[in-house]
Amino acid sequence: MGDQMNSVAIDGHPKEKWIPALKDIQVAHYRIEEHVHRTPVLTSRTLDSMFDCQLSFKCENFQRIGAFKIRGAMNAVLSLTDEEAEEGVATHSSGNHAQALALAAKTRGIPAYIVMPENSPKVKVEAVKGYGGRITFCEPTLEARERALKKVQERTGAHFVHPYDDPRVIAGQATVALELIDDVPYLDIIMAPVGGGGLLSGTSLSAAYLSPKTKVIGAEPESVNDAFRSFRTGMVQPPTNGETVADGLRTALSELTFSIIREHVEDIITTKEGNIIAAMRLIWERMKLVVEPSAAVTLACILEGGLDVTGKRVGIILSGGNVDLDRLPWMR
Amino acid sequence: MGDQMNSVAIDGHPKEKWIPALKDIQVAHYRIEEHVHRTPVLTSRTLDSMFDCQLSFKCENFQRIGAFKIRGAMNAVLSLTDEEAEEGVATHSSGNHAQALALAAKTRGIPAYIVMPENSPKVKVEAVKGYGGRITFCEPTLEARERALKKVQERTGAHFVHPYDDPRVIAGQATVALELIDDVPYLDIIMAPVGGGGLLSGTSLSAAYLSPKTKVIGAEPESVNDAFRSFRTGMVQPPTNGETVADGLRTALSELTFSIIREHVEDIITTKEGNIIAAMRLIWERMKLVVEPSAAVTLACILEGGLDVTGKRVGIILSGGNVDLDRLPWMR
Repeated sequence: MGDQMNSVAIDGHPKEKWIPALKDIQVAHYRIEEHVHRTPVLTSRTLDSMFDCQLSFKCENFQRIGAFKIRGAMNAVLSLTDEEAEEGVATHSSGNHAQALALAAKTRGIPAYIVMPENSPKVKVEAVKGYGGRITFCEPTLEARERALKKVQERTGAHFVHPYDDPRVIAGQATVALELIDDVPYLDIIMAPVGGGGLLSGTSLSAAYLSPKTKVIGAEPESVNDAFRSFRTGMVQPPTNGETVADGLRTALSELTFSIIREHVEDIITTKEGNIIAAMRLIWERMKLVVEPSAAVTLACILEGGLDVTGKRVGIILSGGNVDLDRLPWMR
Repeated sequence: MGDQMNSVAIDGHPKEKWIPALKDIQVAHYRIEEHVHRTPVLTSRTLDSMFDCQLSFKCENFQRIGAFKIRGAMNAVLSLTDEEAEEGVATHSSGNHAQALALAAKTRGIPAYIVMPENSPKVKVEAVKGYGGRITFCEPTLEARERALKKVQERTGAHFVHPYDDPRVIAGQATVALELIDDVPYLDIIMAPVGGGGLLSGTSLSAAYLSPKTKVIGAEPESVNDAFRSFRTGMVQPPTNGETVADGLRTALSELTFSIIREHVEDIITTKEGNIIAAMRLIWERMKLVVEPSAAVTLACILEGGLDVTGKRVGIILSGGNVDLDRLPWMR
């Protein structure tokens, strides 16, 4: 965690895979501050008495673009040198990162080139367009996405911003826990969902630097448990082909996110689909919050009994709230 | 608005129809403080730019029992003398007031007798039971409800707490606007939905006392526009038989709520069903808040264009968030 080197790196060498230091996270927070919301932390008497603990929910569903992803994308885009930024930024994503990068680029006044699978939901395509993103459609395979992205980059010179395998993105996502720890000190546990590991690795760094007694736990759907298996085996495991309502969590860890998670995360636990839906519904009904399935995986793990939270102070990161209101999981 | 007399009345003469003074509202706030939530005020960049104004949403959907009604019921129950309270409280309601009175009674440690129509949704019956309410079922007519309530009162001696035709209840509901005005000064407009008028009359009193330049506007579904017609004709009009998704707003004003509304409310405006559903969906999608249809009627009026809010600072009371997640209005 050499601050000096990292602080140079954060502005100049995005392709190098360094681990964000506390200073990088603090600088990220300062950098993105005026462009993202400081989201509130909410509590629920009902849920506290249901689980006999004190839950503090960090509401990133209220964040701009409806998810925490704007933090990492904004930090990456604002970290670029003028020369790097000039030709714009690019990524392939059908999810929240696409909207996040489009909005971040718009904020900086540069183009965002987004490669999206041709079967992306219309509402997501419209959202990216709404933020001024320039979309290239491709076949819905990882190979086609990467090929299309490469072509876009060759044509435009745009700078690639990966959804999580990027220290600037991780430093941005780490600001969620930085704020949570600031608002709710002495947490025993912080829980975050894990897909590619950008949020979980950032969360674990902020906790390690700012609240080292707090244990960070990752939560993952059982049906796409590659992070769980990576953690157990000590090696990054490939993604499974499993289906989950928490579709934002299907991606695999990168070597970078895994190296951080391995060092700073206490455990990764999994939960069944039924409990993800039940937890999501519980948050909607009792807390009156619209959250997406991925954001409910943490509470689902508690519901499933996989983590003893009795008498504990538990911070839960509600990662986002982007759902299709015409197709809710309990209606399928 | 004789404070002295009212302050006596608030504890001793609930059947007299006095108009709450500022002091009564402040006392109510102090009295219920530890038993209800001070709900947050949330804002939305998206909605502000959509309507070219500054909207401040007072989130009573986060309130205990999921709606503002706990404030009035709690104030009424805690205002009772020990003698009055001894035999318990009673009401007839199938809605939020039933849950509110049950919880308020539980807080004071006295029984709550709730008369509910036999066709009440199971989820509402369970909720009332969950707060310890003792339920008597009756036929789903107003006459049957009143007859059943009278019998319960004769049998138990319980003290009737009306959902809105009661100064103690109105003083309790007035604490919503008291907090809103405290958190967001210099509002040009405060909007509240209107059914029986407890919330709207209380809101208008708080505004008159604490922020007299703020105009209070009531919002009502066009299909059950009795408050709108009462306001226009200067006489309380009977409820219509109209159907509305905002089923909490079907009740008619009382002479008491109307007398306050007539003096302190700037206008009552109405909106079509389609706009209520659209506004509700907008709040869910953009603000990630679960609100019930009744709570969306205010924004629906703005959406419909019935009120010019351009450049204005507008406070909106989101009255509640109790919805059946299996039967959302856009899915029917």
